[in-house]
Amino acid sequence: MKKIAVLLSGCGVFDGSEIHEAVLTLLALAQAGASYQCFAPDMAQLHVINHAVGEVAETESRNVLVESARIARGEIKATTELDVAEFDGLVIPGGFGAAKNLCDFAVNGAEAQISPLVTDFIGSFIKVKKVVGFICISPVMMPLLYGAGVKGTIGTDVDTAAAFNAMGGDHQAAQVDEVIVDAAHNVVSTPAYMLAGNIVEVHSGISKLVAKVLERA
Amino acid sequence: MKKIAVLLSGCGVFDGSEIHEAVLTLLALAQAGASYQCFAPDMAQLHVINHAVGEVAETESRNVLVESARIARGEIKATTELDVAEFDGLVIPGGFGAAKNLCDFAVNGAEAQISPLVTDFIGSFIKVKKVVGFICISPVMMPLLYGAGVKGTIGTDVDTAAAFNAMGGDHQAAQVDEVIVDAAHNVVSTPAYMLAGNIVEVHSGISKLVAKVLERA
Repeated sequence: MKKIAVLLSGCGVFDGSEIHEAVLTLLALAQAGASYQCFAPDMAQLHVINHAVGEVAETESRNVLVESARIARGEIKATTELDVAEFDGLVIPGGFGAAKNLCDFAVNGAEAQISPLVTDFIGSFIKVKKVVGFICISPVMMPLLYGAGVKGTIGTDVDTAAAFNAMGGDHQAAQVDEVIVDAAHNVVSTPAYMLAGNIVEVHSGISKLVAKVLERA
Repeated sequence: MKKIAVLLSGCGVFDGSEIHEAVLTLLALAQAGASYQCFAPDMAQLHVINHAVGEVAETESRNVLVESARIARGEIKATTELDVAEFDGLVIPGGFGAAKNLCDFAVNGAEAQISPLVTDFIGSFIKVKKVVGFICISPVMMPLLYGAGVKGTIGTDVDTAAAFNAMGGDHQAAQVDEVIVDAAHNVVSTPAYMLAGNIVEVHSGISKLVAKVLERA
């Protein structure tokens, strides 16, 4: 049985992991007969968004690991607990948490940096050439992790694609049900809610990404 | 196109809606060609559970509507905004939020009462005999809403089934991929994570429940 790590970034599209993307990743992995373990960095969120009104909740602070545990039903580990030898690959769902907590792309665009905890975690897979799947906005981390020329997609958004290229990546436009594979770097990506109009489209793209990840795992 | 209301109770299995159940309900509705609108009561949660350690976060308080909005990607309405004429039916995912926020079964067992906001909301569907689907632990509200003799399931848990019967219900044992239909009351139920060992089983039961709800909607 293949075992895949899933890196979460909180719980909620505007300040954490996109919940539909995260759950549909777990579903696709389990349906394909793989097992999974969720991880998240033990660090403060950039901020908390009240999702009912779309505004920052100024007086609140939450922890990425603690909130991610909601999606994982409590079965979660801190990124520092990783033993990469146990895993065949990694999948990273999107949501603003990927661009606000895992890295600071939402604030700094093409000048983004990745949190050291996250660099260490994802880097552990890259060092041993294990497959990594990036979903939605999370592919903006790819140029920083893999270096110049890495091929990935955030869909068709012109500004985000330009930033991906400015960071050294080689952006490939893709539709919501497409997966871009960079075989040399052993990395795959799909747009999900960067393009999807509904949860059925997200399910379609993520199911394909998970199938590709498992094929390469 | 059929339009179904989905009643949420927060965001996280231990103090709100079970996230997998809620997302897989939305997926099944959308895949069947139905549209949906999420609702939640605008009220304080019973408490907040730190899902990473499974303990009450004593200093925190959260609102059921605000947290439910995370699952709904911000597209949520308060239960008081319901116009039942717009909808063909209702589905209520589980999670402890259904037994801690929507009603107080988790605290008071067979002496449970349902929050007035929730009684009004679900009651609007029952008054006009529109179909309602209850998932996981949420069927414990059925005897209070439908009265003596209503048939429903919470799976096979002996104590919960006994409480269901003590409240006046007629409990039907069911496996995780089964749906109990009470045609006279136009209500359906399925055990989901009351029995499920994994997300694939939850997907199976909820997909069947949603199909039954849409058949009767």
